[in-house]
Amino acid sequence: MRKVVIGQAGGPTAVINSSLVGFLENISAENEVYAVQDGYEGLVHEKYIKLEGKTLDWVKSRKNTTAACLGSGRYPFTEEKIEIAVSHLIKNGINTLVFIGGNGTMAALEKISQIAKAKGYLLQVIGIPKTVDNDLGQTDHAPGFGSAAKFVAYSTMDISLDLQSMKNFEQVRIIETMGRNAGWLALASGALRTNELQGPHAIYIPEKKFVVENFLQTVQEAVKEYGSTTIVISEGVEVDKGSQTYQTIVDGRTVLGGVSQYLQQIVKEHFGYNARAENLGMNQRCFSLAVSKKDQLEAYAVGKKAAELMKMGETNVMVSIEREDTKGYNCNLIGCKLKDVKDAGERILPSLFMEDTNKYYKWLSPLID
Amino acid sequence: MRKVVIGQAGGPTAVINSSLVGFLENISAENEVYAVQDGYEGLVHEKYIKLEGKTLDWVKSRKNTTAACLGSGRYPFTEEKIEIAVSHLIKNGINTLVFIGGNGTMAALEKISQIAKAKGYLLQVIGIPKTVDNDLGQTDHAPGFGSAAKFVAYSTMDISLDLQSMKNFEQVRIIETMGRNAGWLALASGALRTNELQGPHAIYIPEKKFVVENFLQTVQEAVKEYGSTTIVISEGVEVDKGSQTYQTIVDGRTVLGGVSQYLQQIVKEHFGYNARAENLGMNQRCFSLAVSKKDQLEAYAVGKKAAELMKMGETNVMVSIEREDTKGYNCNLIGCKLKDVKDAGERILPSLFMEDTNKYYKWLSPLID
Repeated sequence: MRKVVIGQAGGPTAVINSSLVGFLENISAENEVYAVQDGYEGLVHEKYIKLEGKTLDWVKSRKNTTAACLGSGRYPFTEEKIEIAVSHLIKNGINTLVFIGGNGTMAALEKISQIAKAKGYLLQVIGIPKTVDNDLGQTDHAPGFGSAAKFVAYSTMDISLDLQSMKNFEQVRIIETMGRNAGWLALASGALRTNELQGPHAIYIPEKKFVVENFLQTVQEAVKEYGSTTIVISEGVEVDKGSQTYQTIVDGRTVLGGVSQYLQQIVKEHFGYNARAENLGMNQRCFSLAVSKKDQLEAYAVGKKAAELMKMGETNVMVSIEREDTKGYNCNLIGCKLKDVKDAGERILPSLFMEDTNKYYKWLSPLID
Repeated sequence: MRKVVIGQAGGPTAVINSSLVGFLENISAENEVYAVQDGYEGLVHEKYIKLEGKTLDWVKSRKNTTAACLGSGRYPFTEEKIEIAVSHLIKNGINTLVFIGGNGTMAALEKISQIAKAKGYLLQVIGIPKTVDNDLGQTDHAPGFGSAAKFVAYSTMDISLDLQSMKNFEQVRIIETMGRNAGWLALASGALRTNELQGPHAIYIPEKKFVVENFLQTVQEAVKEYGSTTIVISEGVEVDKGSQTYQTIVDGRTVLGGVSQYLQQIVKEHFGYNARAENLGMNQRCFSLAVSKKDQLEAYAVGKKAAELMKMGETNVMVSIEREDTKGYNCNLIGCKLKDVKDAGERILPSLFMEDTNKYYKWLSPLID
């Protein structure tokens, strides 16, 4: 019998609950399992809830729902607070800590493991990947990304077709996507484009330098050619004076957003076009009608794999999705070292995909159904 | 054999093409049918396209797609231009004019009919209803509304649950919906609310006076009570000094939008909460993954009914959806006078639904699947 704590951290995804339930449904019934509320904050403030009876039933009932049912959130998880979290884990005799999260979470888990070890405490630590931005290293992709990419791809297709219907009234739409410093989501916007008339006519990603003059020229040429144009830009693109457009800063964390509004104004001022900014917003990570079935199933599978790794006694590992180079889509789940994930840092788009978007869309296709 | 012209006008909906195809698939093959491009503009500039062969096949293939496949758009359809449109219809020997549109379209059709009559020309005129705002009179509801309401209801539920996961970081989300001067869409945001914790905790509609002090108090109380709060506001609410927040004015038409941004700032300034504005944007009227099946089928049926009214020789009518007062959902399609639709003007929410939202949600339920 082991005492196990599991939590969710960072921005929710449409399938983060599937990973949670995938873990819970596949561990041995003899373990004593606690959920931690509100991510790292819950670790620091000992917000543990025993998962049994009706509580466990409720969590399991959330399997195919969006948002993080345990509460995730953001929290400045300083070294000092990590120390506190570890002392609570030790005090409560926790044997295994499992967290579902992104880059920050994997780095924090590794730190927790080190500190516990330094205190001579044997703590098993396992990470389950999730991010809509797909900026997590050491895995082909992360659960949550497929559903977000699906929302972005369908939205862009639909908003572009809608604009074509309206071109005598409105000429330019600038769609803003999530993605932080990586262009995975923004580039996904072109996945369902079937002809030249249909947008996006240009996609701006953080990996490439943004030049406002080139942007304006692209807009003008596209309006001339197609009567209207849909352009996509990632929230993380640095548009002006080398800085990103941000909405707010909370607890030292920059919340990106607003670049589409800024570009819409420039387009209006320069050309007098009727331009509209479309920030796809939170629906990218939570809209339940756009969940990718493949993503949901994989999210469950990585949770299940974490349960298996736990049983096998593995520690300091994150579940990783390894894609096989076969004709169809085929993946293996393996454990990779947390340290390697941390060292890989933010994973941006590889050159291969930026240079040949068709290669990217072929790679992406199975993830968005 | 009749010469028939059909067009689409105004903002597209997710099912406006279903109405078009419903008409085309149910008229006698001996008629000569033309599509008019880009709405009224096409009538003025004689942008007729004969629907036959591959062109007809292509239009029929658009049956279950969103956006307006003929082009709709907005166009200042002045009396002078209506005169020109009528003279073109006469010159081309058109017997029947059918348009799919909202309030403006039905008024324009009535005007066209009058002018033709005054010129001694027998023109059959039939209107097919569509609007996401549901502000069209003389019909229980209009096709297009159900899909938009479904998008709003699911988005609000999902964005609210997502916020609950994040409440240690973000406390307030203000969701902005379409709807122009009527609150149908905004009020639909609460249709899937199942418990007190879940938003929306308040819905602001244009039918009711907005008082900023009351709004701030509501936000503060909800954050205290639930830890976070999701609030919904219609784009048409007058928030400040008795005026609506608008994005731009094009060809004399006000494009509403921006009220959520404004309120987000007020909330931040007053309470220091991390607040976010979420404008649901164009996806409300075009997101293909949120189409209501019932809405799509009804859109087709009203198109089919227009074909029947044409055959019966009816004129100056709009297809109207009449709901029967039975236990289940049951509707009849009838023809109602264009003049009555015009005289009814913009249809706002009835008091019954504003006073008892459960009655509204019961009415709405079959339309959003």
